[in-house]
Amino acid sequence: MNRAAAEQLDVNDPLRAMRERFELPESVVYLDGNSLGALPRRVVDAVARTVKDDWGAGLVRSWNGADWIGLPSRVGALIAPLIGAQPDQVIACDSTTINIHKLVSAATQLRPGRDVFVCERTNFPSDSYAVHRIAATYGATVLEADADDMLDVIEQAGSRLAVVELTHVHYKTGRMHDMRAVTDTTHRHGGLTVWDLAHSAGAVPVELDACGADFALGCGYKFLNGGPGAPAFAYVADRHLANVENVLPGWMGHAQPFDFTHTYTAAPDIRRMLTGTPYVLSMVALEAALLDWADVDINAVRAKSIALSELFIDLVAELDHHGFGLASPRNAALRGSQVSLTHPEGYAIMQALIDRGVIGDFRAPDILRFGLTPLYTRFVDVWDACDALGDVMRDQTWNDERYQTRKAVT
Amino acid sequence: MNRAAAEQLDVNDPLRAMRERFELPESVVYLDGNSLGALPRRVVDAVARTVKDDWGAGLVRSWNGADWIGLPSRVGALIAPLIGAQPDQVIACDSTTINIHKLVSAATQLRPGRDVFVCERTNFPSDSYAVHRIAATYGATVLEADADDMLDVIEQAGSRLAVVELTHVHYKTGRMHDMRAVTDTTHRHGGLTVWDLAHSAGAVPVELDACGADFALGCGYKFLNGGPGAPAFAYVADRHLANVENVLPGWMGHAQPFDFTHTYTAAPDIRRMLTGTPYVLSMVALEAALLDWADVDINAVRAKSIALSELFIDLVAELDHHGFGLASPRNAALRGSQVSLTHPEGYAIMQALIDRGVIGDFRAPDILRFGLTPLYTRFVDVWDACDALGDVMRDQTWNDERYQTRKAVT
Repeated sequence: MNRAAAEQLDVNDPLRAMRERFELPESVVYLDGNSLGALPRRVVDAVARTVKDDWGAGLVRSWNGADWIGLPSRVGALIAPLIGAQPDQVIACDSTTINIHKLVSAATQLRPGRDVFVCERTNFPSDSYAVHRIAATYGATVLEADADDMLDVIEQAGSRLAVVELTHVHYKTGRMHDMRAVTDTTHRHGGLTVWDLAHSAGAVPVELDACGADFALGCGYKFLNGGPGAPAFAYVADRHLANVENVLPGWMGHAQPFDFTHTYTAAPDIRRMLTGTPYVLSMVALEAALLDWADVDINAVRAKSIALSELFIDLVAELDHHGFGLASPRNAALRGSQVSLTHPEGYAIMQALIDRGVIGDFRAPDILRFGLTPLYTRFVDVWDACDALGDVMRDQTWNDERYQTRKAVT
Repeated sequence: MNRAAAEQLDVNDPLRAMRERFELPESVVYLDGNSLGALPRRVVDAVARTVKDDWGAGLVRSWNGADWIGLPSRVGALIAPLIGAQPDQVIACDSTTINIHKLVSAATQLRPGRDVFVCERTNFPSDSYAVHRIAATYGATVLEADADDMLDVIEQAGSRLAVVELTHVHYKTGRMHDMRAVTDTTHRHGGLTVWDLAHSAGAVPVELDACGADFALGCGYKFLNGGPGAPAFAYVADRHLANVENVLPGWMGHAQPFDFTHTYTAAPDIRRMLTGTPYVLSMVALEAALLDWADVDINAVRAKSIALSELFIDLVAELDHHGFGLASPRNAALRGSQVSLTHPEGYAIMQALIDRGVIGDFRAPDILRFGLTPLYTRFVDVWDACDALGDVMRDQTWNDERYQTRKAVT
């Protein structure tokens, strides 16, 4: 393998034209789309138009005129096909963490008399914090499993099982759970699943309906490219909707919000998961970003993602002697759209890489994460990143005080 | 009074230069800043820069480089002086409704063994929905008072009183509670106050610290002009902070978010009220809008607000014979920065007015709201609005089918 061969892979890439849809700085190899997706060009105009025309000139009339009121449903419907859901089962609202609270609480209430939650020991912090807090509210016990013994722990909960809350693709390692197997096992014991798709939506094919999933939520600003702090989304399977309570009721989730009635009557559809007023500017950016997905085949994205990550892993294998470990599964079928390495000097190595324009990120204590986002990541980017990584190790660039100093955000 | 006299009032207005800071369409008299504030000119560039430079070019590095991570605290500190708080007692996050849930829950937990909430019978729906939902969680009773018997009902709750949750300025009528009297009475019985400042912040002087308030929250998109669906804010009095639990814990409220630790340890400061990732684009718009407040004297705003509303009420008095009632208090000291009228044909009348470029809004069943926002509302706007209202009534313009048809957002 050499750089020319990587360039040839890009020439043959059926998704190569997609990169033109994004604004990407020339000097950067961006491998952090799993943290913050790159800027889709069409977002620039969409946001500017919303600010100047819809807010500035339309003013409050734009709730109707620009259909701001329809944003949560409209954006949800755009996300639905990427996660194997029907358009009316998904709504965009609030943050990922708030939606974890909403959906785990909703699921818990559908399983009265059951008092065991199962989640992953190394889940993303928000997932853990929410699950433990809700367990305290309902007097439930949390069983924490490792990825390998997940099905066993679910079995162990047995007839006490209420809810299994899992991040489908692990934020640190990229390890992917078998959604169908987990859902089947959960259902066999009468429990319900809540899937966090933060690292799945737009990254890997997800089949919520086909797997019989109950609830799901995810993030708008990672692989969906909705912009920093983009609103999140929530999915509720049709069969549960009529019985689902939003424990954070607010005026936007009411059946008739503009009647301003004193008593809460939940909207009959997925809008019952809404709470407050939608974050219009952030939501409009997410909507524009999602329009870029309309003609994208998620299976083509997956195929390229695997090819990119296999190339990455192969090239890093040649740097083994510098002390790198592979934190991600070696088997592509078990891996999302990222490659994570371990190294005791991971933090400083990543800072040195970023300083060279190769942007990934670091997760304590020792993980270097590299996100592979097939809409704009090229094979030559993977080559250049690994080349830079080799240089940083060979020259010990990382061994410099300025790279050791922790920043506010790592 | 005539139009020329109104023009002269504008000439003598010490705040007249402020209007230049806003983008306002020529053809419009905008009296709905209590629903959605107008667009501050500086927001246009701030948002465009954030999208293109910070997101597009800076990418994930902007969490440090553009200090996105500091946004919630920075925006909170800009709001603090407008509500009589210290900068480190206020944080910007989530929606108004979510913050009602957070703060009423937090207050409730500080008063274990007490099981009565007091709120206003005609409170904004989100306030009512949240208070009743939280009451159900904690097994509490909700006493609903009218504005006039608020202190009596608080007295009545006596030693069972846990929390008084009130919107300081009523969303429909503009009636303003006496924050000091309510707080004193609440404290005398050992309860805590949660103030919803949605229609107060930027509209009237608020003295949270001086009144001894416990908790408060409010809206970013009304008088603060932060844009459609701007994030909200939350205030926690210093003396409570160490004991306050955020019942919606998430990674951003952790003491060390980037350690990604499994166990939740709340941030020692107001950041413990954070849950998920900040909505950066929406938050940046709000931040820019707040910079316009730096040199504004809220007492000057209040003086002009009263002058505008007195003029409005006087001019409408001449239209009495058309069946208008005054829903707002006649006494300016009891009124926020809006004038609300009643009329059985209120909906159609408002649509006819909007069609003429005079923008207020309607609240069921019969209220026409007119917001007075001294930074950009002129005396001549009030004159023109009342003139148009007179025309609409005299010509019965409202009595047309197209004005009777309800829109999605009223």
